[in-house]
Amino acid sequence: MAQTTPNHTQTVSGWAAHDPSGNITPYTFKRRENGVNDVTIEILYCGICHTDLHQVRNDWGTTMYPIVPGHEITGIITKVGSDVSNFKVGDRAGVGCLAASCLNCEYCNDGQENYCDQIQFTYNGIFWDGSITYGGYSKFLVADHRFVVHIPESLPMDAAAPLLCAGITVFTPLKDNNLLDSPGKRIGIVGLGGLGHVAVKFAKAFGHHVTVISTSPSKEKEAKERLGADDFIISANSEQMQSKRRTLDFILDTVSAEHSLGPSLELLKVNGTLVIVGAPEKPLELPSFPLIFGKRAVKGCIIGGIKETQEMLDVCGKHNITCEIEVVTPDQVNEAFVRLAKNDVKYRFVIDIAGKSSNL
Amino acid sequence: MAQTTPNHTQTVSGWAAHDPSGNITPYTFKRRENGVNDVTIEILYCGICHTDLHQVRNDWGTTMYPIVPGHEITGIITKVGSDVSNFKVGDRAGVGCLAASCLNCEYCNDGQENYCDQIQFTYNGIFWDGSITYGGYSKFLVADHRFVVHIPESLPMDAAAPLLCAGITVFTPLKDNNLLDSPGKRIGIVGLGGLGHVAVKFAKAFGHHVTVISTSPSKEKEAKERLGADDFIISANSEQMQSKRRTLDFILDTVSAEHSLGPSLELLKVNGTLVIVGAPEKPLELPSFPLIFGKRAVKGCIIGGIKETQEMLDVCGKHNITCEIEVVTPDQVNEAFVRLAKNDVKYRFVIDIAGKSSNL
Repeated sequence: MAQTTPNHTQTVSGWAAHDPSGNITPYTFKRRENGVNDVTIEILYCGICHTDLHQVRNDWGTTMYPIVPGHEITGIITKVGSDVSNFKVGDRAGVGCLAASCLNCEYCNDGQENYCDQIQFTYNGIFWDGSITYGGYSKFLVADHRFVVHIPESLPMDAAAPLLCAGITVFTPLKDNNLLDSPGKRIGIVGLGGLGHVAVKFAKAFGHHVTVISTSPSKEKEAKERLGADDFIISANSEQMQSKRRTLDFILDTVSAEHSLGPSLELLKVNGTLVIVGAPEKPLELPSFPLIFGKRAVKGCIIGGIKETQEMLDVCGKHNITCEIEVVTPDQVNEAFVRLAKNDVKYRFVIDIAGKSSNL
Repeated sequence: MAQTTPNHTQTVSGWAAHDPSGNITPYTFKRRENGVNDVTIEILYCGICHTDLHQVRNDWGTTMYPIVPGHEITGIITKVGSDVSNFKVGDRAGVGCLAASCLNCEYCNDGQENYCDQIQFTYNGIFWDGSITYGGYSKFLVADHRFVVHIPESLPMDAAAPLLCAGITVFTPLKDNNLLDSPGKRIGIVGLGGLGHVAVKFAKAFGHHVTVISTSPSKEKEAKERLGADDFIISANSEQMQSKRRTLDFILDTVSAEHSLGPSLELLKVNGTLVIVGAPEKPLELPSFPLIFGKRAVKGCIIGGIKETQEMLDVCGKHNITCEIEVVTPDQVNEAFVRLAKNDVKYRFVIDIAGKSSNL
């Protein structure tokens, strides 16, 4: 249950789910006062991540109701704590998945707060003061400045919002595998959804040959013409898959449904790497033969540290990379959830929290 | 079916299985004459690998009967082809899993023949001349010299035999992950059988802290006292596993039975690597959470190239590393198979092909 601490005095309007039906309704709750290390952010936009759907439905068994989802947040700084020097009122700011970490371990000291053993998330987490965290489906947010980033001036605030989770999720595996400054590699992107379509944009911006591997033949035209992919393989077409055997250097698997890794692994060259960023509830199937006979690697990673997130946004500003989005009003979120569950969105829903969009 | 080519004129006594019962009986067959690139090896010893059991029973659906197993072979050179300069009659020689590769691809040129797309194995393979290969359960072998290694003088020929497969299988992942010259790492070895016990010896010789992770409490004493392991965890003891969470830098998983990788992955530090060298028939279970939340990697590899195999044997000669073996006569092989299937061997059976052992 939510603990109320003395300084949670600010009343905020938001939207919450109250049970595993996942139905989102208006919800008024309290946030803490703006502390010395905090900034307050008037939220303009919040992306709808697949994680939100898992969490409101308690798919992972860890949901604390009422839950206010949202960790792809953009907005404007309205208050700044006395110990905060890197933000000022009026700044364009972003908040992603992280609300807190220990700030003291080897990972926190190395800019990898996301692997700190004590990380707490922007929603459904427990903050330092013992309170449950509430996310970006709300009018404003109080956040420790060490977990806030700047949004480059060149990026629109709506299409930038999903970069805070979807963007960093696909950026770090490319960075960690030395794909930012080594053009000409052959890269596969499995799944063309909220994550996959940004991954295609990054991989193209970094100068690689990009193959989209998808279950949906209907996505081929758009993958190539709109997103710039060089090749497209239907994963269910075993002849096509076989003909591309041992051709890719690296694969990013963005699919969060259960699946076998075997067919994708066969596409990798010897010594190739496949990185998983989706999180299916049930274990993935990992056949040993394609792994051992190709000396391949399967890696996992989750979002990125705050410094990396800022780096990612700056790269997006430089290359003009944003998410392809569909903007919805807060009262359309339940409908958006239904469509998201069917992958019926190109490619990310973003909630117009402040009612500033004119295209609704 | 075996193709007979004109120069397969040498009659050899061996032992073969003729159907999926896997029963081994004496079998007389032909080998090719010693070609210009070949050496002939009088076989002294041949190890019994778990692969032999899979193959005689056609577990992988690829067995060509009659099958003469055996790819952990030591013996003495008795003939040398006119183009062979690195071996002479009387040399102590070893043959492992590889009989042929294309000798021309990037992997063959890089000493990684084991990943050549056209590799052929020492038994149940198809040699360049179209003939089926027959392995080391036989009195002599004709092998291309490019797939033959030298056995250091300091190593006994019986206990060295399993190094040709079991040894190289666990040596290359240690080498590939920079664990030969970087002492002081915390290494886990999953499974203490034919592969695992050699892995413990290598890891200790390279100066690491070694934890054995096993299903069998009875192996703890021996793991520590005989093999030199520093720590021992019962994988079924969740409390013990939990207390060792995030403590290991590297894990080598040698288990060939089906299992989930989740519990082992949790033992790894962030950025840790688990290498699989077993080959269960069914896919392994790979839960995504321990993979992504720990930025971990699961890799696979299979044996090593010929140059690496020679390097491994030289390391064994230097550190006096051999396999712990139980020597059997050829007519005890079926009994050994039954015991091997129950993991009832410490730690590898070796067949005394030439009848030279006195301890039977």
